[in-house]
Parts: sequence; structure tokens; C-alpha cells
Amino acid sequence: MWEALVQLDRGRPGLADQLVDTLREAIADGRLPPGTRLPSTRALAKDLALSRGVVVEAYEQLAAEGRLLSRQGAGTVVAGLVRETVERRAADLPNRVPDQPHTLLRPGVPDFGMFPRAAWRRVYERTLMGMADAALDYGDPSGARRLRVELASYLGRVRGARVDPGGVVVTTGAAQGFAVLAAALRAGGATAIGFEEPGSYGVRGHLESHGLRLVPVPVDGDGIDVAALDRSGTPAVFVTPAHQFPTGVVLAPGRRAALVEWARRTGGLIVEDDYDAEFRYDRDPVGCLQGIAPDEVAYIGSVSKALAPALRLGWLAVPGKWRDAVAERKAWADLGGPVLEQLAFAELLASGGYDRHLRRARLEHRRRRDALVTALRRHLPGLRISGVAAGLHLVVELPEGVDDEAVAGRARAAGLGPLPLSRMRLSGGGPPGLVLGYAANAPGELETAVARLGTLVTSPREAV
Amino acid sequence: MWEALVQLDRGRPGLADQLVDTLREAIADGRLPPGTRLPSTRALAKDLALSRGVVVEAYEQLAAEGRLLSRQGAGTVVAGLVRETVERRAADLPNRVPDQPHTLLRPGVPDFGMFPRAAWRRVYERTLMGMADAALDYGDPSGARRLRVELASYLGRVRGARVDPGGVVVTTGAAQGFAVLAAALRAGGATAIGFEEPGSYGVRGHLESHGLRLVPVPVDGDGIDVAALDRSGTPAVFVTPAHQFPTGVVLAPGRRAALVEWARRTGGLIVEDDYDAEFRYDRDPVGCLQGIAPDEVAYIGSVSKALAPALRLGWLAVPGKWRDAVAERKAWADLGGPVLEQLAFAELLASGGYDRHLRRARLEHRRRRDALVTALRRHLPGLRISGVAAGLHLVVELPEGVDDEAVAGRARAAGLGPLPLSRMRLSGGGPPGLVLGYAANAPGELETAVARLGTLVTSPREAV
Repeated sequence: MWEALVQLDRGRPGLADQLVDTLREAIADGRLPPGTRLPSTRALAKDLALSRGVVVEAYEQLAAEGRLLSRQGAGTVVAGLVRETVERRAADLPNRVPDQPHTLLRPGVPDFGMFPRAAWRRVYERTLMGMADAALDYGDPSGARRLRVELASYLGRVRGARVDPGGVVVTTGAAQGFAVLAAALRAGGATAIGFEEPGSYGVRGHLESHGLRLVPVPVDGDGIDVAALDRSGTPAVFVTPAHQFPTGVVLAPGRRAALVEWARRTGGLIVEDDYDAEFRYDRDPVGCLQGIAPDEVAYIGSVSKALAPALRLGWLAVPGKWRDAVAERKAWADLGGPVLEQLAFAELLASGGYDRHLRRARLEHRRRRDALVTALRRHLPGLRISGVAAGLHLVVELPEGVDDEAVAGRARAAGLGPLPLSRMRLSGGGPPGLVLGYAANAPGELETAVARLGTLVTSPREAV
Repeated sequence: MWEALVQLDRGRPGLADQLVDTLREAIADGRLPPGTRLPSTRALAKDLALSRGVVVEAYEQLAAEGRLLSRQGAGTVVAGLVRETVERRAADLPNRVPDQPHTLLRPGVPDFGMFPRAAWRRVYERTLMGMADAALDYGDPSGARRLRVELASYLGRVRGARVDPGGVVVTTGAAQGFAVLAAALRAGGATAIGFEEPGSYGVRGHLESHGLRLVPVPVDGDGIDVAALDRSGTPAVFVTPAHQFPTGVVLAPGRRAALVEWARRTGGLIVEDDYDAEFRYDRDPVGCLQGIAPDEVAYIGSVSKALAPALRLGWLAVPGKWRDAVAERKAWADLGGPVLEQLAFAELLASGGYDRHLRRARLEHRRRRDALVTALRRHLPGLRISGVAAGLHLVVELPEGVDDEAVAGRARAAGLGPLPLSRMRLSGGGPPGLVLGYAANAPGELETAVARLGTLVTSPREAV
């Protein structure tokens, strides 16, 4: 029986591992059901013409895995496993949240197909095989030193930021940056924060769930209304100066100066979310606000729009007086993020691979942006389009009275992922519109998607 | 001049990349200082006998990196870089916290030299090159489905846990598990938690910093005193039943039953930190408490003691009634941890590689434990040693009146990392002792370290 069950390739090394694999498989698929008594190591060794040591090693491994039970005097039996085969099958399901939005026209995500797998593999391997053993220890909770150095340099030359490596905290994404900062603000006595209206629906929850009340501050064609912020009396404000989300406007020079003046006069903190600023198509990138006011601005960024959200890699740079509080909150949050991928990303930055990827992505995004605009002009003529000069999304205004939540709901049912503009307002109201992403879809897909969208906006089911 | 500066290997493809690398290096090392005006693309192409497109591409890449500035009509000049060369040099520093404890005799860390780099490389590569594009999206904040399935199976067969994949939350280490759970407890109205006395110094801060007051509950030879816990009136308790930290005692069967009875009667939550339970040397591992009371126990674990803390990979499984609160807190903490390494770890579990590593580590740890005990008997004879049957550390009691903080301080100055037992008590008092780790050091190192320690314990500088 055992010779039939156990097929070994005696030409290959690792006979014990082969025996383990074979027995594990037989246990998993039910050929060796729970309770089956295995031969003694001596008997099986004889049957299979193996040295007894090989069988002993295999049994020990399977016992360590909980698949075999060895009891003095009672021999070795197959353990009762908990629905493992069924569970393994579940493991083949794609790794996604069931209600995750469709990627067609979905704003805020890059094209996952453009992720530089080969380059990432190179830098990860180089890190893994080259790092000192000590790098496997608990590291600095604020992040691997080498990445903080590379980030400070990168943010300086590409975003005009003024940060030194000691002032950078590596996070597991911008979301953790918001969480850590909100917790530090709360610990410092703040209970509210000014928030762009309209502003990022996604960011809200992170700030609110950490105890901050959001105070809407209007955004117009020049960006956030600083006079209104001043009247609100909040001790902090959340802004997206380089490319406002969702409108796409750039904070005008006068407003930048006024905002910094507000912070200096009131001691308020400006929280700058530089979420997609690497992508600007009409001119040189707009430098970040942090670069002109490093003592007033907490700067937040990530690789989610440029590489992939799944990497969960971001950064946070705060003014000197906030450093200790933020480093402490980060340490208590998780004792620091995964070090190996931090070092791999440092390597990607140092080798120029990140810049190279961004340059390619930028060219491709511009092409897609153009395709989306062309498709909108064709299938939804006459609607105002804005925010096209940068980023990964644009805004199309819908005719007055249209329920943009309803349109987005119908789009979703049709496999499209645009977001309703009204959802981006704390007050809920305002002119209807759609936030459309274009980075994740090829020009042809965008054309098809917008054609479908066109029929939904003007659908007779619309209750206007 | 340019032919001399730019050395290209024309036999290799990627001339533009070569040109970029060469120019980047020349800018970094000062051969092309800030302000240097570069030739026009046409002129440089002619000089180097390249197509003009190659030079244009190289200039665009360097401009994207912020290293060159191109201005209409003003040509292309080298940008002013912010101390990049100096910062790069800082990047060569080892990645460690300046005041990190020495690893000789330091408890709570594995041998970083035993990390299975080749196996990890295989599973990471297989993940990276084989995963669907969709895996690069924002995933389920509670963790990649595939890992949750593998963990549920692993914890069932190796630790006797009863969890289903939907009840597992993947964390960035046990620390985040404490943080998330503490936040959920606070949100549920709890303000205090019972805490083993003595107990883990490292865990305390995570619970306290998220708003929980720690109430000391004595530990004796049978584990935590459940009657004392009951009198304390706290709505939750933190325990290490399989191998109490630091004493090493196993929670006795009667106490297990009493603790579960306490939870059922009062509705209290048992927080089980199963921090090093894979390592047991005297008998079969003690199953986790969660397996006998899944509705009363929140179970926390990680790979920090078995693989490496730097991976920041852990898990949390809570009773049904706590699931939503915990999943929500995890989502607001960071929108989920890094997906690629989660999937790589799932692959390591599925392939049996994790069990294989643990088996090897277990054999080696036992050898080291024996070496440490032998060395203690030789160099610190007569002192009571406890907690040797499992884990990565043991406790040696010091003579009454000895200041264990002072001994630990001297040890630290001598390059050793034991921790003082008194620091493990909220009340500070109690018999003096040292918590000694042995997993990270080879037998010979342990012998040398203990010989040195022996002279420090009996040092004449001791003020007894």
C-alpha cells in the first residue's frame, strides 16, 4: 500500500521533504483520513527502501504541523483536521473586498497592470539577500533610516519639500498618517479641524474616527477660503493645495500666503495631503506648501497613486514642535511598519527606478486623460469638465437638479465606478457632478465606459 | 568634454538609461555642480554619436527627478540639490534605533541569522510574479483573505484555536493587535484592564497609550489569580496562559476553567497573548485558551518570535460580538496592512515552510536553552532558575536585596541585554531577578555572556 501512495523521485535531493509533501497531500485530499494509523518509522523505511532517519524526520515535521499525532506506545495516527480542504478552496478566491467599487472610471487608483513588478522584484531581492541580520530586528518605529533619507531627498527635489530624514515618519499609507496625526492633535487638545468643502470623502472617516470634528471650509476657484477658515476658529486645517480633491484647483499664490499667515498668526497646523501631486500635465508640478512653510505644515504622501495601494507605504513630515507627539503615536500604533519593503522602496528611490516609473506613468496618464475628455465631449456634450490639468481624475458637472448619487448608483450597477460629487460635501448639497478616474483604464475602455455612462445620466428613470 | 564624462557601453541595450545613470552620478559627485548648463539635446547627441531621441529621453528623466531644470529659451541646467551626497552617506548607516538593547541575553527576539531568507525569497517572488493585478488594489482592511484562511487552519492545527477566516484580522504585529483591541475596548466603554503582575513591560504602553488603566493581578505558580481578578472588577484581562511572561508558568487547568467561568459570568473579555507558544521543549505545546472558549477570548499572535519582528506581521481573532468593532478600528488605523508580504506569508504557511522553519528553530532553541542553564549553574551557582520549559527566555532570581535594575544597567554597559524582573511589575517591588533571552545567541556566546554577567551580579559596586 505505502509504495503505491508514496511516489518519490529518488534522483532529486530532499527525500524527507518529498515524503512530507506526499503524506501531507494524502492527508489533505482524504486518502489518509483522520485516525489512520501509520506504519512505524522502521516498517515504512523498509517498505520504501529509505533510511529510517528520513522517515523519522518526515513524521516529526508532520507532527509539528499538527497533521500527525505521535503517542508513546500508541503509534502515529493522522490527526483530525478542521475542514482544511474546504478552507483551502476558499483560499483560491480572489483577494478583494466583496463590495469594492469597479475600477472602470473609479477615481483614486492607478493602473495595477502598470505596477513595475520586475523592478520591484529586483529591489526587494537585493534588500532581502543583502541586508544585515540586524535589519530583521524591531526597527525605529518611525521607519527605516535609509528610506527616510531617500524620501527626504526625493521630496526635496521632486516636490520642493524641506524635510530632513529625522523629521520623516514612514507610515503604512496616508490613512495611517491621518490617524497618527489626528491622535496627536487630539492629545494636544484639538477637537476640530477645518476641512475642504467639497473635500475627500475617503479622508473624512480617518479624522473623525480619531476624535476630530470636521468643520467645512468652502473651496472656490482659488482653493480654500482662508477668511472662512479664520472665522471658524479651528486649530488645524486639512488641505490639498497642489491639486484640490475633488475639484482639481490649485491653491492660488495669494491664498497660499494667506493660509501660511493664518497658521503663523494663530499657531494653527496646516495638514497638507499631497496625494497625487506627481502627476501634472500642463506645466511643472506645483511645489508643495510644506516647502514654503515647514514650521506650519504637516505633510502627508504615499505610493498608493503612483505604485499601488496594496503596498501600504506612505510618509508624514511634521513641524519640529509636533515631532515627538507624532513619533510617539506612531510607535504606540504598531511599533513601526514592515521594514523589508521600506528598504526595498528606498532602493527603488535610490536607483532612479521610482522616477523612471513615474515618468512612464505620467505620459500614459496624460494619454488617458485626453481619451476621457474626448469621450465626454462626444457622449455627454455640453457638460462642464474641470480639474483636467493634473492627477488621476476629473470632475464633470451634471445638469442642475440631477441626483448624482442616483446616477452613480446606476453606474455602479452597470459596472462603472465614478463617485458622486455631492458625497464630497459635508453639507451634502451643492451642484451635482461626477468624479471620474481615468488612470486605471486604457483609452478604449474609457471610450466604452463613457458611452455607457452617457445613457445613464440621461436615463428616463431619472426622477428630476 | 562630454565624450570624456559620458562613458556608454554601446553593446548593451538601454542607452538612454545608461546616459541617465552617468549624468546622475556626475551631478551627485559634483562633477556637474548646480547651475552647470548642459548642451542642447541636438549638440550632445552629435557629440556622443547618439540619436537625439535618446538624449531627449535622458534629459526628461533627469528633469522628472528634479536633477535638471529645463526652461524654454534658457536651455537645460543642473538643479541645486539639497545636500544629497551627504545624505546618501548617512544612508549607509545601519538601520537601527540608537538605544536599541544589545542582543546578547536580550529576551524576546529570535536569532536573526536563522531567518529563512531563501524560503522567504521564494514565497515573495511567487506572490509578486503570480498574483492577479487586483491584489494591488486597496484590499480588505482586515487582511488578505488567503492569509486569513491559512492562519485559521494553522492556528487550529498547531495551537488548537477555533477561529474561522472571517474572524481573523491580520495586523502589522502584535503591537497593533493591542492597539486596535484597546481602542475597541475603550469605544465599548471600558476604562481599565487587569494585567498580570509580573507581566510584560513591552505590552503595557500599548494598552495605556490607548486609554486603558492597568490593574495589577498577581501571578503565582499556577498563573494569574482569578479570584483577585474577580475582585478587581475590571471588564477585561490581559493574560499569557501558555507561557506566562516573564515567569514562564503555564496557567493551571483549574485556573483556566476559573478564568473562563469569570468571563462567562461577568461578560468580561480575556485577551490572550500567545507570544512564543510555538516553542515548548518538555512536552506537547499547551493549547491556547481561545480553543476552549472562543466566545470569551481575544487571541493575539505574530511572527516576531518565530521569524522576525521586522516583518511586522501578526493576527488578532476576537469573539463574534467584538468583530465589527475590531474590524472598524483596524480599518481606521491604516486601511489594512501591506498585502504582498501577507500573501507571501500565506504561501509560506501553505507550503509547510513555516512549520519546517519552526521545527528547526525549536531544536536549536532547546540546545541554546540547555547551554544557558549550564552556564548559569557554572557562573551563578545557587540562584534559582525558572521558566525553562518553553519560549525564548528564562528567569533567574537574584539574592534578596540586590538591585536588579542596577545589575541590568551594568550588564547593558558591558554589552549584555537582560531585563530586570522588577521592571515587569507595575508596583515595582518584589524579589529581584533577571529575564534572560537565549534564542538569539549561539551556545558559545551564551557561555561567554553569562561568565561576564556573573562578575556583574557579584560586583563590589553593588550597594546592598
